[in-house]
Amino acid sequence: MLREQGSQFMPRYDAAGLITAVAVDHVTGSILMLAHMDAAALAKTRETGFAHFHSRSRGRLWMKGESSGHVLRVIEIRVDCDQDAIELRVDAAGPACHTLAASCFYRRLESDGTLARIEV
Amino acid sequence: MLREQGSQFMPRYDAAGLITAVAVDHVTGSILMLAHMDAAALAKTRETGFAHFHSRSRGRLWMKGESSGHVLRVIEIRVDCDQDAIELRVDAAGPACHTLAASCFYRRLESDGTLARIEV
Repeated sequence: MLREQGSQFMPRYDAAGLITAVAVDHVTGSILMLAHMDAAALAKTRETGFAHFHSRSRGRLWMKGESSGHVLRVIEIRVDCDQDAIELRVDAAGPACHTLAASCFYRRLESDGTLARIEV
Repeated sequence: MLREQGSQFMPRYDAAGLITAVAVDHVTGSILMLAHMDAAALAKTRETGFAHFHSRSRGRLWMKGESSGHVLRVIEIRVDCDQDAIELRVDAAGPACHTLAASCFYRRLESDGTLARIEV
């Protein structure tokens, strides 16, 4: 199980050529956002030190914060066991969410099935 | 933008009928594992209080820990802005990774491109 336990980085892209990337705060470890990367986005992230993703809706490479300025500086990259997901440990220049919440995960599912806004 | 800012839970499944689920420790908030859910897995998770996923490789519903006993008791569910990803805040009964690491994200990408095992 070279991919699962070895020291070789061999990302497992899905049928659409993507892996899932989760950005977390490098100090607190708390989750900020989730997006997808193709090989180009991963390469650009490693090359520049700033998180780049592949937009599935727009079908293009984008740098997080390219318009808002809320970039994510990548401190460390971790990969999961089967190498189809990566964790980006980042220093966020501003709110990670385009709604200006600190994290995109700012709503909690209540037992009645509605969503409640929480502080994150 | 009802889906992005509203109080209605309306998960956005992808073309394969899946959303991404990230399990994090409910105390520390640190990331444990990432998997996918279809509507059935999400319903079963909400109904039982234990994390269920859809296995893309095996094409079936599974409960995390069904064979290992390392179940994830769900304390809280959060959803991201565009509702195509959820955060499961869990109490883990054992190592989240099938390799017996506490988290699946137990390797760090080094600058030379190799992976180094870390304590998580």
